[in-house]
Amino acid sequence: MRTLVAGLVQQSCTQDTAANLQRSATAIRQAAAKGAELVLLQELHLGPYFCQTENPAHFDLAEPIPGPSSAALASLAAELKIVLVASIFERRAPGLHHNTAVVFEKDGSIAGKYRKMHIPDDPGFYEKYYFTPGDLGFRPVATSVGNLGVLVCWDQWFPEAARLMALSGADLLLYPTAIGWDTDEPDCERPLMLDAWTTIQRSHAIANGLPLLCANRVGFEPTSTNTGHGLIFWGNSFIVGPQGEFLAKAGTDAEEVLTAQIDLSRTQTVRRNWPFLRDRRIDAYKDLLLLYRE
Amino acid sequence: MRTLVAGLVQQSCTQDTAANLQRSATAIRQAAAKGAELVLLQELHLGPYFCQTENPAHFDLAEPIPGPSSAALASLAAELKIVLVASIFERRAPGLHHNTAVVFEKDGSIAGKYRKMHIPDDPGFYEKYYFTPGDLGFRPVATSVGNLGVLVCWDQWFPEAARLMALSGADLLLYPTAIGWDTDEPDCERPLMLDAWTTIQRSHAIANGLPLLCANRVGFEPTSTNTGHGLIFWGNSFIVGPQGEFLAKAGTDAEEVLTAQIDLSRTQTVRRNWPFLRDRRIDAYKDLLLLYRE
Repeated sequence: MRTLVAGLVQQSCTQDTAANLQRSATAIRQAAAKGAELVLLQELHLGPYFCQTENPAHFDLAEPIPGPSSAALASLAAELKIVLVASIFERRAPGLHHNTAVVFEKDGSIAGKYRKMHIPDDPGFYEKYYFTPGDLGFRPVATSVGNLGVLVCWDQWFPEAARLMALSGADLLLYPTAIGWDTDEPDCERPLMLDAWTTIQRSHAIANGLPLLCANRVGFEPTSTNTGHGLIFWGNSFIVGPQGEFLAKAGTDAEEVLTAQIDLSRTQTVRRNWPFLRDRRIDAYKDLLLLYRE
Repeated sequence: MRTLVAGLVQQSCTQDTAANLQRSATAIRQAAAKGAELVLLQELHLGPYFCQTENPAHFDLAEPIPGPSSAALASLAAELKIVLVASIFERRAPGLHHNTAVVFEKDGSIAGKYRKMHIPDDPGFYEKYYFTPGDLGFRPVATSVGNLGVLVCWDQWFPEAARLMALSGADLLLYPTAIGWDTDEPDCERPLMLDAWTTIQRSHAIANGLPLLCANRVGFEPTSTNTGHGLIFWGNSFIVGPQGEFLAKAGTDAEEVLTAQIDLSRTQTVRRNWPFLRDRRIDAYKDLLLLYRE
């Protein structure tokens, strides 16, 4: 048995970056105090989800990696001796930005990063304006607590991404996320969307026999002042085991720190019982490299 | 709006092939009476799940397609003017057999077939002994009610299979299935297994924006006489829409005929709202054609 206590932070964000980071730090300390050696933050946790509109001024929020925010997070990882997975709007060069997850080792060094590969773009989530699709591929980050298959938000809808992480030796899948309901979303659609989102991520755990953490934000964030319009981030962060079974689950509205003890050796047991990796028909998969088959 | 009433049959099987087929026919008639234009049968519905043991005598159960059982099913499809998806142990040549789904058109003709591509083999499910992996690939069968992405049982654990059907223009995914608990399975594991099985199939609906039907068998089938050992087929057949939402769901123990009205035009709506097909990173998927990445 090879166990790992893992935690995640579900929080809301205001315009005050320093206060957001401070609240993240408090939550990370709580997770560490509960024994977490690995802590996952939500997507773009330094501030409100700025992709609700296309605004060139928002590029000022981007930072290099390493940079000021990554330095603060690295210090915290080193102080608490944890592996920390954070999410930063990366300024790689003028006019070239990514939605990047950074993995800090227990000594505060950068163990690796993942640049979001699948970029959404739909009303309220104008990410194609801000983020160039990642060029690092689907590669787990090797850390002292295991190989972390870090993916980001929209990636969670693509079984291909999780599979490639599993085939590359990931021990866990991690999804920093920012997803919610548009205020215009009819009430009847909301539970369907939330359930679909939970279900597809649990399915990646199942298909690959891997535990999975997903950290989502909470709270209402207006599109702009005084319209009443905006996004209601739906929380519901969770940790599941390699059969998709819930180990911990957060609510819809409140900030929460979730932790769970994960038995990493269960992956081998589960994969022996349901040996999907044995039976993939790689001789018949080549058209997965097409957008469509006419 | 383009609607289709679809149905499925969840049944138990005895050693009496004629009686099994008769009971299937009665259930198919019930589904048709409820307006079903498409009916799905469970995997290998002509008899008990013979793959619990490796026994050369069981090859006598195989039939050519077309053959006697397919002829009976074709007649029924023509009589009821329905599209019928059946599952037959196919004898292709001496020593060459497949686990094959056959799709009958409303006039009784064979619209097409699918040969199970992913073949399981684990205690109680010795399918690699009986079935050569399919060589027809993942191709939907074009019918008067839509393009049917027919897959079989073990295929349901592989997101690649569902994705290839979707990329090939499938309008629905269909899974004839025979899955259950071994009598040795600890009670605590049973709900996890059932939930994982339901979840991963719902995820294929979600990932691809397609409705999905899964027909599973019910009932206890002993491995051999007087041991008390065997498989408890867990039923729980279901029909879901393109967000994985349940339209109909059967119980664990009883024979049932499920029907649901499916709005096929919802696929377009759902795919517009969550346009996953737009954003697949086919430039970064080539290692899906590997068994593992070292």
